[in-house]
Amino acid sequence: MSQLSQKHLLGIKDITRKDIELIFETARSFKEVINRPIKKVPSLRDITIANVFFENSTRTRLSFELAEKRLSADVINFSSSSSSVKKGETLLDTVNNILAMKVDMVVMRHSSPGAPHFLAKHIDANIVNAGDGTHEHPTQALLDTYSIMEKHGSVEGLKVAIIGDILHSRVAISNIFALQKLGAEVMVCGPNTLLPKYIASLGVKVELDVRKALQWCDVANILRIQLERQQIKYFPSLREYSLYYGVNKRMLDELDKEITIMHPGPINRGVELNSDVADSEHSIILEQVQNGVAVRMAVLYLLAGGK
Amino acid sequence: MSQLSQKHLLGIKDITRKDIELIFETARSFKEVINRPIKKVPSLRDITIANVFFENSTRTRLSFELAEKRLSADVINFSSSSSSVKKGETLLDTVNNILAMKVDMVVMRHSSPGAPHFLAKHIDANIVNAGDGTHEHPTQALLDTYSIMEKHGSVEGLKVAIIGDILHSRVAISNIFALQKLGAEVMVCGPNTLLPKYIASLGVKVELDVRKALQWCDVANILRIQLERQQIKYFPSLREYSLYYGVNKRMLDELDKEITIMHPGPINRGVELNSDVADSEHSIILEQVQNGVAVRMAVLYLLAGGK
Amino acid sequence: MSQLSQKHLLGIKDITRKDIELIFETARSFKEVINRPIKKVPSLRDITIANVFFENSTRTRLSFELAEKRLSADVINFSSSSSSVKKGETLLDTVNNILAMKVDMVVMRHSSPGAPHFLAKHIDANIVNAGDGTHEHPTQALLDTYSIMEKHGSVEGLKVAIIGDILHSRVAISNIFALQKLGAEVMVCGPNTLLPKYIASLGVKVELDVRKALQWCDVANILRIQLERQQIKYFPSLREYSLYYGVNKRMLDELDKEITIMHPGPINRGVELNSDVADSEHSIILEQVQNGVAVRMAVLYLLAGGK
Repeated sequence: MSQLSQKHLLGIKDITRKDIELIFETARSFKEVINRPIKKVPSLRDITIANVFFENSTRTRLSFELAEKRLSADVINFSSSSSSVKKGETLLDTVNNILAMKVDMVVMRHSSPGAPHFLAKHIDANIVNAGDGTHEHPTQALLDTYSIMEKHGSVEGLKVAIIGDILHSRVAISNIFALQKLGAEVMVCGPNTLLPKYIASLGVKVELDVRKALQWCDVANILRIQLERQQIKYFPSLREYSLYYGVNKRMLDELDKEITIMHPGPINRGVELNSDVADSEHSIILEQVQNGVAVRMAVLYLLAGGK
Repeated sequence: MSQLSQKHLLGIKDITRKDIELIFETARSFKEVINRPIKKVPSLRDITIANVFFENSTRTRLSFELAEKRLSADVINFSSSSSSVKKGETLLDTVNNILAMKVDMVVMRHSSPGAPHFLAKHIDANIVNAGDGTHEHPTQALLDTYSIMEKHGSVEGLKVAIIGDILHSRVAISNIFALQKLGAEVMVCGPNTLLPKYIASLGVKVELDVRKALQWCDVANILRIQLERQQIKYFPSLREYSLYYGVNKRMLDELDKEITIMHPGPINRGVELNSDVADSEHSIILEQVQNGVAVRMAVLYLLAGGK
Repeated sequence: MSQLSQKHLLGIKDITRKDIELIFETARSFKEVINRPIKKVPSLRDITIANVFFENSTRTRLSFELAEKRLSADVINFSSSSSSVKKGETLLDTVNNILAMKVDMVVMRHSSPGAPHFLAKHIDANIVNAGDGTHEHPTQALLDTYSIMEKHGSVEGLKVAIIGDILHSRVAISNIFALQKLGAEVMVCGPNTLLPKYIASLGVKVELDVRKALQWCDVANILRIQLERQQIKYFPSLREYSLYYGVNKRMLDELDKEITIMHPGPINRGVELNSDVADSEHSIILEQVQNGVAVRMAVLYLLAGGK
């Protein structure tokens, strides 16, 4: 029934360029919808979607919830803080219980890499991975690449630098897959301690000097330094990171060209990104957020069969 | 206006066999509804329902919320963790405030036995007890007996063993009332320390040996050992309970017949129930969950007057 | 597009008497609506409203949520406990992100006085202040004065005493503005330590003796002693407050007239108000709660343009 090559959206790794292009085309229509006075369509009126979040995420949950409501789906929210998971239930039992209540789709965030893939083998409903540990965050990559395409006309042949904590970032991994499938050249940039050892095997350029990365790229996707994941003794410290990798307007002014600035949010202003860049005309950060709703509507709509 | 003999569903003790049969008949229609592609009916379009949970419960709240949404009711959720209860307000004031906002029905879970009965004397809206301390959990008993009826054609004359922590279980008490009203024979089985002293006065058989209970019954309803209510020095310990009372496939294979396996969830796999039983063809555990939504739709619909 | 003189409802200080009268007139129609069997109107069918609560508030959030649902708006809830605020994001970034998802109105509670005013300068959506620190709580003042008008026919010329912790109360401040704009005489009454130094400059009478305040007024609005804001060594203690300022039936019986009793809730029974007064025929406390939904519907409807 899914209009994509897969029944689920578990990761960008599993889908095809054609899938991504179909999602973008559909998202373009939905973006028109959410910019109309009447922002709703009845497409998923008969679909019940459970947002199952084993990890907190305001931004992603809100974006999915709005996407679902604008498709007229019935929405139920489940978060682990109030859940029977604490009572010793297995993940599969928890999800099977939700599905036994006749839920058609599960949007799931989980701290364990591969949790949604495990589920997909055992359950019948469509699953959308809303982030699994440090593994993938496919809808974020789709909205990021959609935003690049919207700004530059096409992703093909563009040079995109992903700057920051690549080691702990599912956003980086999913973006690499999406950008490569769409024909972009990808560079990752960050301190050695924040680059995973396997990263070169993904076919990306690796750069330690942020100024060189900025000089090389057309688009800089600047990741958030995840304060809550950092240990106290981590190297570099926030102050060190900000000093050597924080992107500010002066650095951009030194370039002989203009580059597009992206950030998946939430921003630590003054750490990885200065306000004079985040709020500049080259920043498409809020456009990313808006596109997030449209892209998620497209994914849900296509998985449901695009009725 | 209620189609039941009562204005509220406070406990199974208070309703008649005729009430239960009407709920089952209505639930059967709603089960057809939720298995259709279009899972919604407009029955309670003009009804506002407040889910007021003073105790956490993902499973029960989700089931009620889905039931309410499929009846097209307006739903608001109130949980004590974010409530004015903490600010020193009385239960009656809290609920009267919710009702002054023109709410038609209150689904309430509370840690104190009798809390919904107290409310019922003072307020005008319909109340559904979603569990009050160790007292009653009527919709769970209704979905359990509905599931037995569905599997065996009728409850009349069946032998049902309820196995586990009877002392702390509102599910056990409500099930005993429901099963007896529908003409089943009921046995409770568990270690002495988990059987309340008054239990024989309810007209049930009492059995300490789980193998004998399994031999006797047609249906075994295996309760959850409530980890979070157990004190560290409790007897039996989890390991001891599992050793002497945990139900596994070997025990069932030794019987000269097949019995139906039930569990109200969430399951502690390997404690009160092994996976080889929980996932076997004799288990109707997930059917119970699905029937929960249909039964709750029926209760809400009938209390609202069955328009 | 707003039918009020302002685009936002930030505080009573900022709006005109004509605005208040228009809100009351509109609330009167909506009160009829919520007392009909069909309690919903399609007015805001195309509007998405975000309830953004950086401070817990069950009562106010539920009242807004019901108001929004009865206007058929799409509602999303955001609370700081599960928010990216914890991840170091600025308030403006958080709200801009929500707005980028195409939200039309923001109902916001925040612990910092002036937070909604700050936002109003930077964002495009309509903002309704649902309480900002000790500053203003405009919809509470509107529902309070609406309730007085409903009971007494008019607010003009009435004597209203606000009794309790004036120092920490945004309810008191907003009520003073609303009552004065509508032509009432206002007195504040409480122990010296709970009266702000600037209070006389607002043009209100100040009275330390609660019996004299009750003798003077037509309406007594008795505020909640905020247990959670009190320090252990605070003066007066709860016991002292209750002894000298707690209002009970005996005190009212000593008056040579009848006065209307109000309380914004949640009540600490036996502290600032005894049950024999809270539940008496002169109390309009539950009427206030009901009017809260109607008044909030009116505010949202008028800000949206009264379509």
